Amino acid sequence: MTSTQQELTVTIGGVSRTLPTVRAGGMGRVPLVEFIGDSEFTNAVAQEMVALIPEGTEVLLTVVTNALPLTHELSDRSGLPYVCARKKRRTYMQNPIIQDVPSMTLGVAETLWLDGPHAARLKGKQVTVVQDVVASGGTAQALARLVERAGGTVNGYLAAFRQGDSTLPLVALQSLPKTL
Amino acid sequence: MTSTQQELTVTIGGVSRTLPTVRAGGMGRVPLVEFIGDSEFTNAVAQEMVALIPEGTEVLLTVVTNALPLTHELSDRSGLPYVCARKKRRTYMQNPIIQDVPSMTLGVAETLWLDGPHAARLKGKQVTVVQDVVASGGTAQALARLVERAGGTVNGYLAAFRQGDSTLPLVALQSLPKTL
Repeated sequence: MTSTQQELTVTIGGVSRTLPTVRAGGMGRVPLVEFIGDSEFTNAVAQEMVALIPEGTEVLLTVVTNALPLTHELSDRSGLPYVCARKKRRTYMQNPIIQDVPSMTLGVAETLWLDGPHAARLKGKQVTVVQDVVASGGTAQALARLVERAGGTVNGYLAAFRQGDSTLPLVALQSLPKTL
Repeated sequence: MTSTQQELTVTIGGVSRTLPTVRAGGMGRVPLVEFIGDSEFTNAVAQEMVALIPEGTEVLLTVVTNALPLTHELSDRSGLPYVCARKKRRTYMQNPIIQDVPSMTLGVAETLWLDGPHAARLKGKQVTVVQDVVASGGTAQALARLVERAGGTVNGYLAAFRQGDSTLPLVALQSLPKTL
């Protein structure tokens, strides 16, 4: 990992990306990881993450939006099904599970929505929570609550990047600096 | 395609899905196509769509959320890069292009946001607009305006499903009934 004052270069599976940095609340500048619009980087990261999926995992659970193509690829490469929570209510949802998440990174409360038919796919399953970047761990904890409320069991936490010092039992490919 | 009163079964590339139907405004019930959370169906549809990408295409452009894993796969399988517009302003965006879209399907106006660095990837390029389902064509037209405003040229319109009778010069795998 190479850091200059304004940007950061990461290399995963032989693919390098120079991440721009963006201002985040009172935290200074944080590196911006974008999987959306970058299938080459997404695939390289997914390929490395497959080996880190905790043993016993039956279903992957993620949340929109940036981790969506990554989790699709993880599902494709591992053969495990995945479920994706939304951040807005969709008109077609049936008996959704609604879970608040206090997001330290953004400084605003968010709400996760899991459509009933998708929640049913977690019931009785060993579920691993998948994210692009875990900072405070607040979103991961909200996803874990969704798993429990859907009748599943949390089998582990997997992310491409860890940022900061959450106490979550998290497996991640690389650590990003909290500020640059 | 097999239709009963409340659901519809589609088969693409050997993969079948029974689509639930959902109420949509005053339009009765419409079939719900979900690529999110279904990597097997996403891959089957992407594989069939690759052959339909218009000749000369240099970049694919789509919009969140349901078409995102599909377009990721299309990019992966075709080797073409893709760009994805958002439906909300993100705090990190730099000089985004902002484009209103009147959505007939939802009955509410939406706004598309294309981050400046992503818009730059469309400049001078032949761009094909990719969507999951095209109904009125309003979102497709807004995406086309984004292409033009970013300095690119619209090379064609590609969707998994067509629904209704938009006059757009659209290539789609299958047609869905407008109501059931």
